[in-house]
Amino acid sequence: MTQSQDTYWMREALSLAGSAQYRTRPNPAVGCVIVKDGQIIGRGATAPVGGSHAEVFALAQAGEHANGATAYVTLEPCAHYGRTPPCAEALVKAKIARVVIATLDPNPLVAGKGQQILQDAGIHTTVGILEKESLALNQGFMKVMSGGLPYVRLKVAASLDGRTAMASGESKWITGDDARQDVQHWRAISGAVITGVDTILADDAQLNVRQLIDAETGAEIDLNQVVQPYRVILDRQVRLPLSAQLLNQPTTVIVMTPYRAELEALGVIQLPVQSLSELLQTLKSQYQIYDVLVESGATLATSFLRDGLVDELIQYIAPKYLGQSARALNQFEFDEMRQSIDFELFDVKRIGQDIRLRLKPIVGNFEKPPA
Amino acid sequence: MTQSQDTYWMREALSLAGSAQYRTRPNPAVGCVIVKDGQIIGRGATAPVGGSHAEVFALAQAGEHANGATAYVTLEPCAHYGRTPPCAEALVKAKIARVVIATLDPNPLVAGKGQQILQDAGIHTTVGILEKESLALNQGFMKVMSGGLPYVRLKVAASLDGRTAMASGESKWITGDDARQDVQHWRAISGAVITGVDTILADDAQLNVRQLIDAETGAEIDLNQVVQPYRVILDRQVRLPLSAQLLNQPTTVIVMTPYRAELEALGVIQLPVQSLSELLQTLKSQYQIYDVLVESGATLATSFLRDGLVDELIQYIAPKYLGQSARALNQFEFDEMRQSIDFELFDVKRIGQDIRLRLKPIVGNFEKPPA
Repeated sequence: MTQSQDTYWMREALSLAGSAQYRTRPNPAVGCVIVKDGQIIGRGATAPVGGSHAEVFALAQAGEHANGATAYVTLEPCAHYGRTPPCAEALVKAKIARVVIATLDPNPLVAGKGQQILQDAGIHTTVGILEKESLALNQGFMKVMSGGLPYVRLKVAASLDGRTAMASGESKWITGDDARQDVQHWRAISGAVITGVDTILADDAQLNVRQLIDAETGAEIDLNQVVQPYRVILDRQVRLPLSAQLLNQPTTVIVMTPYRAELEALGVIQLPVQSLSELLQTLKSQYQIYDVLVESGATLATSFLRDGLVDELIQYIAPKYLGQSARALNQFEFDEMRQSIDFELFDVKRIGQDIRLRLKPIVGNFEKPPA
Repeated sequence: MTQSQDTYWMREALSLAGSAQYRTRPNPAVGCVIVKDGQIIGRGATAPVGGSHAEVFALAQAGEHANGATAYVTLEPCAHYGRTPPCAEALVKAKIARVVIATLDPNPLVAGKGQQILQDAGIHTTVGILEKESLALNQGFMKVMSGGLPYVRLKVAASLDGRTAMASGESKWITGDDARQDVQHWRAISGAVITGVDTILADDAQLNVRQLIDAETGAEIDLNQVVQPYRVILDRQVRLPLSAQLLNQPTTVIVMTPYRAELEALGVIQLPVQSLSELLQTLKSQYQIYDVLVESGATLATSFLRDGLVDELIQYIAPKYLGQSARALNQFEFDEMRQSIDFELFDVKRIGQDIRLRLKPIVGNFEKPPA
């Protein structure tokens, strides 16, 4: 089978994986199609935690026709007995003839073991078809399984002249409806949304997913199919009011704060005050949070960038000038251009009347300002 | 002939007009193709001032085959005896059967007269094919001929956080090579580049066209084919040094300044100090300047916007944060969001590692800050 045919079917598998992206956390979203004689005979995507993997659904649909067919999977089939038996063995048992894999499992202790089971059974394997696209779908999982901290997206919204609010604090609706709707997607693929207590004090923000639109179909997604992110509030000085709206759903709230008995009584998770990198480590190891969205004001945004913890900057730009006395986007104090924080732009999109930029900080170009 | 065929041929005529856009000022850039039996038998574009109009070249190429053919012109054929005889009469004489016109001459005293000559001779005319595209090619001409001031493009370059320079003034190379190259196009379609004397003092800028790339072919354009813009320096306080590089070509320099004998001796044009709108009026009526590019610092940019004189904002954004103590993009002092200057975004483009936005100020939304 040619590379372009493989790409064609893998795109189908990726589309299935995409359809599962909001429901599988902390598991990765995976898609699988089984193809025989140029037809798809089985489709599957990862079920919510506790359910089956993509391959199991696809094999069940294909039934005995799987014999001699080709399976396309967006992630290397698992090789371990977990909540489900290993998918690699299920593919062998179904007498699949060839398995095309977008990307191997990034965990070096696991990577290749699923492929090995397939090869030992005489199944042809091809790895690397649409690998980049598959990695993009599970960035946090991939980064954490490779030994890293959670994948951090920093979201900011500013005017064309780089301002986030008036000096008075007035800030509502800088960007339009479409941009605010777009933010819901980033929340919904995140294990946690992190913000400072000032955001709660200013807006009584809830930071949950309230409406989600399928990017492919434009249809509204049933929120019951969405794993809500943890809301993580940084509150070093015990300023979070117990009347905050987000405490109405206390069990998905994590507050980094000096211990408060009243939060414990509400069922809120508390974490001791720690550095941002320690916090990310804690969220990963204790709560299986692999994707983090930072939605905050200039102070926290500056801290995450200064500490080199941001993997991706998502900046919405509203086409307006708020003027030079409006609030700045960040709190960096640089004297020379060489101190600037530089980004690599990798995506530009119009979102309604606003623009969304996605950028990666360029590592190693950042020099701390002179003390 | 169907509308889609008309569009097809008009696009050819527009492409010819585009190829002439840097050389025809103050005349508009016009293209013409003559089509017979589905073939182009004549092509033409406006020659530099003193030369022929597009139709003359196209008719000469078509020769006697023009009899019964269709002519596509991006602007209504002229009806007056100027430097050349009226093109409408030349089309009649050549026995053209049909004339398709992208847009009528915007001058209400002229509009329709060329078309009338054609119709009186029994020639079929169609008006309005790719009109928007044709108007976009000669924005200053169209605006001025409709009775307006010159078309003003305000060009600014800033970082993602809305800064144009460090507090020290250090500012070179915020944007990359490609963005700086792109600016050459806007200069080359302008009758004048306006800047404040501070820009000269800071950078010894020349503000001329030094290298121009054809957007369609990528080839370098011979600068002898380019009408250089006037360089207009606003110098209310007599600070322009006589050693400024741009004075090496003094006859294309206009300085708005209290009278200086030494500038007169150099052959520099001087204008008395006047308001920005008066200045635009002067540039239009005395120098046939219809397109103006404002390349300046925050002060002058703010003045042009505040006075409602900007038709188009061209903002280049470099993917970096310069920090909150770096220089602001404008000097507006607003207390409330409703005072913001709002724009309508109509074009987004990546230019190398930077982004270029083109926006129109939304008229009527601008309230002066409280005194």
